[in-house]
Amino acid sequence: MTGADRPGADAQAVVALGGGHGLHASLSALRLLVDDLTVDQLTAIVTVADNGGSSGRLRREFGVLPPGDLRMALAALCGADLWDDTWAQVLQHRFAGEGEMRGHSLGNLLIVGLWEQLGDHVEALDWVGRLLGAKGRVLPMALVPMDIVADVRGLVPGAPAELSSVQGQVEVASTDGIIESIRLIPDNPPAAPDAVKAIHEAEWVFLGPGSWFTSVLPHLMVRALREALVATSAKIVVVLNLGEQPGETTGFGPAEHLSVLLEHAPDLRIHTVLVDSSLDGLDELGKVAETCGARVEVADVALGDGTPRHDPERLAAAYARVIGAG
Amino acid sequence: MTGADRPGADAQAVVALGGGHGLHASLSALRLLVDDLTVDQLTAIVTVADNGGSSGRLRREFGVLPPGDLRMALAALCGADLWDDTWAQVLQHRFAGEGEMRGHSLGNLLIVGLWEQLGDHVEALDWVGRLLGAKGRVLPMALVPMDIVADVRGLVPGAPAELSSVQGQVEVASTDGIIESIRLIPDNPPAAPDAVKAIHEAEWVFLGPGSWFTSVLPHLMVRALREALVATSAKIVVVLNLGEQPGETTGFGPAEHLSVLLEHAPDLRIHTVLVDSSLDGLDELGKVAETCGARVEVADVALGDGTPRHDPERLAAAYARVIGAG
Repeated sequence: MTGADRPGADAQAVVALGGGHGLHASLSALRLLVDDLTVDQLTAIVTVADNGGSSGRLRREFGVLPPGDLRMALAALCGADLWDDTWAQVLQHRFAGEGEMRGHSLGNLLIVGLWEQLGDHVEALDWVGRLLGAKGRVLPMALVPMDIVADVRGLVPGAPAELSSVQGQVEVASTDGIIESIRLIPDNPPAAPDAVKAIHEAEWVFLGPGSWFTSVLPHLMVRALREALVATSAKIVVVLNLGEQPGETTGFGPAEHLSVLLEHAPDLRIHTVLVDSSLDGLDELGKVAETCGARVEVADVALGDGTPRHDPERLAAAYARVIGAG
Repeated sequence: MTGADRPGADAQAVVALGGGHGLHASLSALRLLVDDLTVDQLTAIVTVADNGGSSGRLRREFGVLPPGDLRMALAALCGADLWDDTWAQVLQHRFAGEGEMRGHSLGNLLIVGLWEQLGDHVEALDWVGRLLGAKGRVLPMALVPMDIVADVRGLVPGAPAELSSVQGQVEVASTDGIIESIRLIPDNPPAAPDAVKAIHEAEWVFLGPGSWFTSVLPHLMVRALREALVATSAKIVVVLNLGEQPGETTGFGPAEHLSVLLEHAPDLRIHTVLVDSSLDGLDELGKVAETCGARVEVADVALGDGTPRHDPERLAAAYARVIGAG
């Protein structure tokens, strides 16, 4: 189904790819656009490479997908009434105490229980979505848990150019070296067919913001997703982070973020690069964008409280402008 | 609200007290009577003295009520459509594996998370009830976790008449001695006000079946519940077990079950004692029932597969006859 087939021909089918807090911000914005009917079909595709915290413990104990980023995406899309909001809070509940449950997220446990009970990742996530009255679907980027491996410079004393392998989302996100590139283990994980289909049927795809090497770029490393992103007629918007992430992207300006993305997917056609107006290096960004034919949309999308977080309403306004101008 | 005030004056408000599998069987029967409109208001009041398994671990880790029997009661009352049934199955899901989650029930975790999130035991159970489309309310017998203490004969070598104290539901249920009586710690726990109210407003109260000393009699040890059971105009039905429970009621026939209950609540007026037709000792039961003015209803309520389990449909038919004759 394309936009022209749907009632309300102006409303758009949108896919958002990412993970963690960055995807949560993007989905919080897109949810507002569902509410105002700018978007009529919303699909989140979420990294499943986490190996830390509650997700990492569940992954190691049960061999399942790490559920945390999926849970956060579902919470971002939850409906607005008391029922939806209460269940979203319950799913985000984290056990305290000093015992074996400490640090586990209740929503993670619920998702894993549903996977075990229903035997189908996507169906189980749809059940949680219905519980929360979610304004869109949440799908995993792959149907098996995966690990991120980074080639990192600067970890070998006396040999600053030598590459070392760093494996695991937590380890990559906190490396002391400089990340050159990433790959996945397994290197060709099975994508969720509905995720591939959603990319093909979308009018717009939003990639990022989020931890660049561990939440955003991994989507481009799943062959079926990358092929769909290259083949789709959807317009692709890369949403840049509000700054560098110490460890993962130390020293990266907007241009470096875009460059490393293009290095990982040279055949990707990017329609728009969305960047916050407060960032330095917009000239360099413009030059990199020009090399791939992308336009740059500069907007005021930061929360403005000194933290590198996006404001959902400002981000929604910027997304609406991008969609309107497209 | 009494029966006369409600639309459909023949329908009855019913309270069921107990715990564990016995209460699950009783509620499965009563749920059928809600479906056929014999019962229009159903309230389960559930023991909260468990100290074993997933419930015991959560109780020790978080100081909360043990959730397991509450979860089972909710599952027994779940609605009949795909949504209700799926969530009931998910709540009953138990984690396998070999790690820290092993043996935990997902529903127990959900109930504890709701308690922590909402800060109110009864409200949280109502939320789970709404999730499952439950055909009645489930309330805890008290608002604090409690321990059962039994006075037990036969544990002291060479002094068979000497009484020893055994503390804890698991320990009492598996004692090698003969239980004389039980009490609670704390000895006067706060009852849930809605539980007291439900007993006062009921037309019928069903007590048992279930582990006699650890799931049934504890209700009579909570002062506010016992006072309500003595004062209510509701007709009280004691539903006897299908046999002795090794450890807890070794050597007990129907008469001994009723006698020990009367010893724990001498001022309780019992309307009917319901007993399965297969049991020996019905003559003795009749004599004990006579002493307290109760009639004995003999019915075919066992599953009949050799296990001491009630058949929900047969139990429902017997309950309907008792209510109809009352």
